Amino acid sequence: MDFAKRAVDHLHYDIDPIIRNRLDNDFYKLLMRKMILNRHPKAQVRFALKNRTSDIPLARIIPIEALREQLDHVKQLRYEPQDIHWIGGNTFYGKTGMFDRDFLNHLKISRLPDYELSIDKSGDQFIFETEGDWPDTMDWEDYVLATVNEMRNREVMRGLSPLEIDVMYARAKSKFVAKLEEIRRHPGIRVSEFGTRRRHSHPWQRWVIEAMMEMLGDQMVGTSNSFFARELGIEAKGTNAHELPMVYAALAAARHPITDGALRHSQYDVLSDWRHDYDGNLLMALPDTYGTTQFLENAPPEIAMIWKGFRPDSKDPYEATDELVAYWKRHAQDPKKKIVLYSDGLDVPVPGYELNGESMIAIHEAVKDRVTDTYGWGTMATNDFIGCIPGLPDALKPISLVCKVHSVNGHPAVKLSDNPAKAASPSKQEIERYLRAFGAEGIGDERRTRV
Amino acid sequence: MDFAKRAVDHLHYDIDPIIRNRLDNDFYKLLMRKMILNRHPKAQVRFALKNRTSDIPLARIIPIEALREQLDHVKQLRYEPQDIHWIGGNTFYGKTGMFDRDFLNHLKISRLPDYELSIDKSGDQFIFETEGDWPDTMDWEDYVLATVNEMRNREVMRGLSPLEIDVMYARAKSKFVAKLEEIRRHPGIRVSEFGTRRRHSHPWQRWVIEAMMEMLGDQMVGTSNSFFARELGIEAKGTNAHELPMVYAALAAARHPITDGALRHSQYDVLSDWRHDYDGNLLMALPDTYGTTQFLENAPPEIAMIWKGFRPDSKDPYEATDELVAYWKRHAQDPKKKIVLYSDGLDVPVPGYELNGESMIAIHEAVKDRVTDTYGWGTMATNDFIGCIPGLPDALKPISLVCKVHSVNGHPAVKLSDNPAKAASPSKQEIERYLRAFGAEGIGDERRTRV
Repeated sequence: MDFAKRAVDHLHYDIDPIIRNRLDNDFYKLLMRKMILNRHPKAQVRFALKNRTSDIPLARIIPIEALREQLDHVKQLRYEPQDIHWIGGNTFYGKTGMFDRDFLNHLKISRLPDYELSIDKSGDQFIFETEGDWPDTMDWEDYVLATVNEMRNREVMRGLSPLEIDVMYARAKSKFVAKLEEIRRHPGIRVSEFGTRRRHSHPWQRWVIEAMMEMLGDQMVGTSNSFFARELGIEAKGTNAHELPMVYAALAAARHPITDGALRHSQYDVLSDWRHDYDGNLLMALPDTYGTTQFLENAPPEIAMIWKGFRPDSKDPYEATDELVAYWKRHAQDPKKKIVLYSDGLDVPVPGYELNGESMIAIHEAVKDRVTDTYGWGTMATNDFIGCIPGLPDALKPISLVCKVHSVNGHPAVKLSDNPAKAASPSKQEIERYLRAFGAEGIGDERRTRV
Repeated sequence: MDFAKRAVDHLHYDIDPIIRNRLDNDFYKLLMRKMILNRHPKAQVRFALKNRTSDIPLARIIPIEALREQLDHVKQLRYEPQDIHWIGGNTFYGKTGMFDRDFLNHLKISRLPDYELSIDKSGDQFIFETEGDWPDTMDWEDYVLATVNEMRNREVMRGLSPLEIDVMYARAKSKFVAKLEEIRRHPGIRVSEFGTRRRHSHPWQRWVIEAMMEMLGDQMVGTSNSFFARELGIEAKGTNAHELPMVYAALAAARHPITDGALRHSQYDVLSDWRHDYDGNLLMALPDTYGTTQFLENAPPEIAMIWKGFRPDSKDPYEATDELVAYWKRHAQDPKKKIVLYSDGLDVPVPGYELNGESMIAIHEAVKDRVTDTYGWGTMATNDFIGCIPGLPDALKPISLVCKVHSVNGHPAVKLSDNPAKAASPSKQEIERYLRAFGAEGIGDERRTRV
């Protein structure tokens, strides 16, 4: 793949679709979708785009009509027969037939709901929202994130000469391979590629995954991207995301507008539903939607005893490890036999470049004798072009773009997380109610604000 | 140009010709050829290949039959009409019509003489020799050097995976661009690309030249390669080479087997013939064929007064500068108005890599206030892949391969140079005679042995 040529060609086409296949999405969407279809198929869930990097005025960079063309292209995509065959026939986490005929038939006839796209009053940011049956609407998240991120990158590259683009890719390759060489020096590290939503582009993500496969060998354990898992014949990875507890909580809050017990308990209902539908390696809990500390405090004992581990996703990784180790010890579990999947803003140091996130290497060295550590590597795997454009080191610095659950059946949803910069809701009043119900104990300060 | 793809494709073709055009050669061959055609059109000159990097067993790396196929392809190439039009119609060093109709007609009907190719007794090295009329045989030098160098590179790359090749080009691009950025920080530097014979490959040389053009702007003053000068619309650069004094000396030595005066004087005969045929910026003397010190000592005053400058090509550049400055001062010339063209083993420092040669930057900083300095940048521009292959930093380290005048009308030729490692002759007896005639004063030690 000649990345430079491809980037240059963008200047001469009308539309070069960014998303070309419904499987070009995080695998956990399929896992969650199966449970959602069983339990909440008619929940009307609204997702909304938010650019946390508000100083990058996306709506002034990307022409809205071009974005609409890309999203219209996405909207008419279907799960194709070969996609369905892979979902139905493949083995995931050692299990065959994980997805039954009913689910596959549902996928075949499913359609992405419509979306609304406009520009906010400031003129700087897009407003993107979509609402529909939860099992259908949930797929929009990755598609819109990957689309907006790649369109921004294309616009930045429009200002570069072919040589500058060529040099940019050469440097990005050199930089990424240096990261892989560093990971190889720590053979205990196991890493999955988790960077679909914030990738530089689809073909770049493929290059990244192929480089990981060749250079890391057994240290590379899979990708979260279903399309590349199929195309490259590797393991599809992922379990579940914040949208589950967010929707469950919003449903509980709407059903019980006065008392908070059901709201607090909804975070564990997600896990009992999940455990009913899945077992084994898929029992990885995401503890931080409303704060990890309160989550662990009140969790039913099975979470410590039966679940395989946790994915801390917003707390300082060292604090999170301490907290999880203490939790398991309190429940007489051997932490070394438990899995911690680190997935929040990971990077790998490269000489001559600044680290942009938490060092996977440093975490591994600190935790490897305490827990079974594994890594989900996102943005800094699939979108690290920092320092790669001659004279414009930060022009392609990744932005923190998210597409979160906004409301459920018209009731506002809330995420608190361990990091106040990641807290989100359309309703301040609702955030206050959640803070009352869940408390703010153990939540960090704003310092850890990053992609 | 997707270099990685191209390199991988080599594994699947029968022959991918390395030399495809007679202009893919050093421009000074045309300049010298015009003079040679006027003065010594029937001298029977034999050129011979020599690998000074004798620990690289080229004949065990490159299949001889594949090399023969490439050379047979070269041999049948002709100067094509569009080549002749460029030579006849273009402006060189500010002069139009430098090459007259007779010369152009000569080129049209000229043919490369046959060559002999075998393997030496050790089995390690190729024996390549070619003999014929000097104006025809002289073109073989660059063709055979570029061919053997690129074939060696292809064989090395045959052992690499597509990813390794991809990473190799990415790193080489990053490294080269870092060199250009360093040159740009010294805006007084003027540099020409002089790396045809030792290039990695033809398309890589094009990439290098285009990168220099874009990134260096006015600091890039041209290329020695006629083909790329035409293709890319830039200045063709170069004046004359060691073969002129070597053949002149061999002819003198054969005519005057007893006395040495004519032998010593032959080095100046070259220059008076040259000055008769050319003037202006082409009056750049190469002083080191038989040692710079004796050359300057006995040179006729016009060399100091009328000639524009020198190209020191084998002496330590700082010593050479001191010697030239002192020479000009002795002859009441202002050295600052004289040109020194540095062309011997130049490199540019890049963080994280070892310098492989003399730093162009350091020379410039040392001499810029004393002379008008300019640079002919060869191997480390067009063939620096040192440290670029993961785990095999030296696999493509350039070798010191030369193709020198071996004999003239059957009489052995000799080069002494300022660097004993560059001295060459098929006859030890003849070297001794030349050392008697020219002396060894001012010739350095073996320390400076490199490409």
